[in-house]
Amino acid sequence: MSAWVLPDHIADVLPSEARHIEELRRELLDTARGYGYELVMPPLLEHLESLLSGTGEALDLQTFKLVDQLSGRMMGLRADTTPQVARIDAHLLNRVGVTRLCYCGPVLHTRPGRPHATREPLQFGAEIYGHAGLEADLEALTLALDCLRATQVGELTVDMADARLVRALLAGLPVDAAVLAQVHAALAAKDASELASLTREFPAASREGLAALVTLYGDASVLDEAERRLPSSPLVRDALAHLRWLAGHLDGARVSFDLADLRGYAYYTGTRFAIYAPGGSDALVRGGRYDEVGAVFGRNRPAAGFSLDLRELVAVAARRPLRAAIRAPWGEEPALRAAIASLRAQGETVVCVLPGHESEVDEFHCDRELARQGAVWTVRSL
Amino acid sequence: MSAWVLPDHIADVLPSEARHIEELRRELLDTARGYGYELVMPPLLEHLESLLSGTGEALDLQTFKLVDQLSGRMMGLRADTTPQVARIDAHLLNRVGVTRLCYCGPVLHTRPGRPHATREPLQFGAEIYGHAGLEADLEALTLALDCLRATQVGELTVDMADARLVRALLAGLPVDAAVLAQVHAALAAKDASELASLTREFPAASREGLAALVTLYGDASVLDEAERRLPSSPLVRDALAHLRWLAGHLDGARVSFDLADLRGYAYYTGTRFAIYAPGGSDALVRGGRYDEVGAVFGRNRPAAGFSLDLRELVAVAARRPLRAAIRAPWGEEPALRAAIASLRAQGETVVCVLPGHESEVDEFHCDRELARQGAVWTVRSL
Repeated sequence: MSAWVLPDHIADVLPSEARHIEELRRELLDTARGYGYELVMPPLLEHLESLLSGTGEALDLQTFKLVDQLSGRMMGLRADTTPQVARIDAHLLNRVGVTRLCYCGPVLHTRPGRPHATREPLQFGAEIYGHAGLEADLEALTLALDCLRATQVGELTVDMADARLVRALLAGLPVDAAVLAQVHAALAAKDASELASLTREFPAASREGLAALVTLYGDASVLDEAERRLPSSPLVRDALAHLRWLAGHLDGARVSFDLADLRGYAYYTGTRFAIYAPGGSDALVRGGRYDEVGAVFGRNRPAAGFSLDLRELVAVAARRPLRAAIRAPWGEEPALRAAIASLRAQGETVVCVLPGHESEVDEFHCDRELARQGAVWTVRSL
Repeated sequence: MSAWVLPDHIADVLPSEARHIEELRRELLDTARGYGYELVMPPLLEHLESLLSGTGEALDLQTFKLVDQLSGRMMGLRADTTPQVARIDAHLLNRVGVTRLCYCGPVLHTRPGRPHATREPLQFGAEIYGHAGLEADLEALTLALDCLRATQVGELTVDMADARLVRALLAGLPVDAAVLAQVHAALAAKDASELASLTREFPAASREGLAALVTLYGDASVLDEAERRLPSSPLVRDALAHLRWLAGHLDGARVSFDLADLRGYAYYTGTRFAIYAPGGSDALVRGGRYDEVGAVFGRNRPAAGFSLDLRELVAVAARRPLRAAIRAPWGEEPALRAAIASLRAQGETVVCVLPGHESEVDEFHCDRELARQGAVWTVRSL
């Protein structure tokens, strides 16, 4: 095999796409900044126990492991940034009030999350800590929508769920972890027959409630139907009321519900949302409430937030025109060098044609050139 | 040990520093863009043979290794981006003419490069391929200086060397690789007695030339002295003439020479430079010519470029004032929400005070607040 073949599901990002990703990255960070979210940069490598504690088996299996030569301890490459940001909120900042944080950087996965997914997503996300009320859930969702709108994707659909529904339906049942994982998988796949077989021995209320969940997707009428079909409990009533409130506060986005949706990481504890755009093969954004995400770090603060992969986003965001450039000759003349420096200081791209390369095709779209007219250098159209 | 203790030489970057790094990052990428350097994003993970071929033992020892579950093959985490960019130039772009590329992303080191260095530098760099003339060396050096000036570090010193001098002094000698590495180390450390003992059996011209190199550092008179003291050969004459030409074309930077400097990676083949700023514990930037860097990928193009670590740079760059923010109450009133959205669209940071958190101290410097005056929401000073 040739030395330059990359591993499966690993790819270079070439100039036009890289430039687009960089522009999207700045728009996302600036949008989050506009809401008061402060940027943090957690490391790519951490000790395994801080990276994985309390995050569940899915994240463990996705995490590359390494031995630290300096200490002999096991380290992991982050596969998700949310647990790291929870650690920063809990330990480094240790603030009493509301804390808003955002991040943008690569994560690595041992296996692709979906058939054609990259193993090196570029994860952007935002998290709000310290507020248990729905205003935080709403802010996370509104920020996610504003971020996507800034990048000019098509019409957005918000698909909502709540982690408390499944928890309420399983409350008090002595179900072991392996069976629980299978129940979650059957719910996520909407596999009613598998679900029926897994829950055969469950009490009727749980069994019928879980079976109902699989059918509870669609428009707002789903919430009315859920009220009728799910066993009533404070947790179920809260979850449905919260979904209704959130959906009522979203302006300008299509809202749907999928009450069996459990995809993504295991740390969600309340409302959940996924945002879809035309052309995407999966949700662009996943987010919601995960109040227990900082518990392992000794500080169980309320938390809500979301994340997305910029490599997925760039595939559906509207293409932009390449910025045009100015071609200039190479030369030692001070007037020429000053003219080039001045154009660059104004934000122009000035490509110097090095001696002997005058007949090469420009990779940049050079629509102007710097040329001498008498004693002065001026820009003229090509 | 507590779950949240990070590995040695690995650290989180907290908000004020992260914000500063992000601003520097944009300035560096925009400066490179102004010169016509196109952004690429090589992956963090590659097969070991493509990551390490032809790069030498130092990079191998710095590289974390992993097994790919999908293929069973060994992969490495990049410890340097230059060989990846050479691969992209050689194979993916495969252009005939001059190609200018830049990049910015993390690299990982198994051990810190210096006593207090991070094991996760944030590497920014630029490379120009396809031009063998000194104009390319000059462009790389000028771009590096412009990048640093954009970030407002103090007065810059360019320290120059040339990899051909040592090569010329060792030409034709049957020196084995281990001894060669020791000679390089003795030169880098300016250890004259170790060098004398290692070169005891060398021909007089080589031995005396290497001994002279250790003393050849300082201002431009070093080049005159080198002409007198080094054995004359086409390689030595070229190297000294090229250093003289480059130094003569740099405006506004202090220039010095250190002809024994061999620090950094082993791929340099011609002129080399290091740029120092006040307050830095080591060179901020290293660069030069490395014509053979793409050879392993089957395309031995002329190449020049440089790289720097943004985490080092932020430590010496001038601090910036934190941008002030506007405090706003939380509310469902459409006029309030419209006022907040409009301020954010203008680039302002508007922090909503969530219900119950009115008495918390702002982490942002809020110098204004959004308040209702009669029927309209207006911004007033605090």
